[in-house]
Amino acid sequence: MPADTTIEEKIEALGLYLPEAIKPPAGVVLPFQFVRVSGDRAYVSGHGAQQPDGSLAGPFGKVGTDVSEEEAYEVARLVTVAMIASLKRELGDLSRIKAWLRVFGMVNSAPEFVRQPLVINGCSDLLFDVFGPERGQHARSAVGMASLPFDLAVEIEAEVLIAP
Amino acid sequence: MPADTTIEEKIEALGLYLPEAIKPPAGVVLPFQFVRVSGDRAYVSGHGAQQPDGSLAGPFGKVGTDVSEEEAYEVARLVTVAMIASLKRELGDLSRIKAWLRVFGMVNSAPEFVRQPLVINGCSDLLFDVFGPERGQHARSAVGMASLPFDLAVEIEAEVLIAP
Amino acid sequence: MPADTTIEEKIEALGLYLPEAIKPPAGVVLPFQFVRVSGDRAYVSGHGAQQPDGSLAGPFGKVGTDVSEEEAYEVARLVTVAMIASLKRELGDLSRIKAWLRVFGMVNSAPEFVRQPLVINGCSDLLFDVFGPERGQHARSAVGMASLPFDLAVEIEAEVLIAP
Repeated sequence: MPADTTIEEKIEALGLYLPEAIKPPAGVVLPFQFVRVSGDRAYVSGHGAQQPDGSLAGPFGKVGTDVSEEEAYEVARLVTVAMIASLKRELGDLSRIKAWLRVFGMVNSAPEFVRQPLVINGCSDLLFDVFGPERGQHARSAVGMASLPFDLAVEIEAEVLIAP
Repeated sequence: MPADTTIEEKIEALGLYLPEAIKPPAGVVLPFQFVRVSGDRAYVSGHGAQQPDGSLAGPFGKVGTDVSEEEAYEVARLVTVAMIASLKRELGDLSRIKAWLRVFGMVNSAPEFVRQPLVINGCSDLLFDVFGPERGQHARSAVGMASLPFDLAVEIEAEVLIAP
Repeated sequence: MPADTTIEEKIEALGLYLPEAIKPPAGVVLPFQFVRVSGDRAYVSGHGAQQPDGSLAGPFGKVGTDVSEEEAYEVARLVTVAMIASLKRELGDLSRIKAWLRVFGMVNSAPEFVRQPLVINGCSDLLFDVFGPERGQHARSAVGMASLPFDLAVEIEAEVLIAP
């Protein structure tokens, strides 16, 4: 049994999935890599929530008005499995992930919404559930953006320690 | 005399303090680490200003309307000593900080406020005062956010080179 | 012929230029380094578009209202050559750049503007044109800010792998 089965099994046990490669909206070219590896570091591009086929997943809009805090927490979980799916495509095997280092959580925020940490806990909680308390640990910011691409509610980028 | 006495003495001489561990608002769980160490790097989570007992410190709100540029400069100083306090808790000894590398300064900005660099100079000036011109040097961005957690006026994250 | 001639020639062939060192607006002190080197990493501070003499270049304002998407794409190109110019000043020779790793693209966004990736493609396309598909490759986020320093339309920060 490959070493990363456990991680994928845990994701499935949470009722989640690793989506297909990102399908941008019609007419949009995204020319960069979703994971850039250099030595023992993997830089994870900003991800949004994705449907199983790789297309962007809603709910869309500003958290605090269009999207509730509870919905946005669920979106942050979807964003996190989208990042993990991109890491699997680039690394081949999720067992190469030795530690999460930095998570930068961006919430498309209505001007009065100030509970970004509660939203991005959807990412942190999933990382702990799936990778455990040491590998899943991370430094983090959770902040409010004026807008996000294609009206995504949450976008997250990250940096990960890997086995080269 | 331990090698980090000088840094803490310099902070005290500036009339500032190293606050206690962060106390989030009631009912809020922040499950991540405020400093994540990997090899010779320490990733510093987004920090706000803290009172000596670790609770969040004001003034709160948007810079340019609720909070003046001058007040926000002082807030950026408080944020910086909060980051240093987290580094001390994680590293044990501030002499392990070999160099500041990256500072990402986020200002909760009214739409017309465009003087974020003058605010985040409160962080840069303090780093130079306390760590000197080489160790305290850093790359930096200073940008305007739509909102920040719990209406903080300034949040800063950083990356630091350490003795492993 | 020095090894970085090709990169500078390619920039000129695109009708662009490497600007002089950044000249901030009158009365503004920017005390930090625009490129901070540590080992094999160069951290590139947030840059705006610059005129050849180093002063800030317009168009200024919010993308989606004051600045069109097409204009902002051109601004992102100017931001990118400004970053390259800072790297040349710090590294001496652009051939020391082994790979772009992370690009963080910030667009001063009107609340309804959600096409930040199309704007920051101005940076990605230039990196591929000038550094080629492997050295120019990068992880990326492209997000909407409430405001940027001095009303810049686009600000970008980056991390680069270098020959120490």
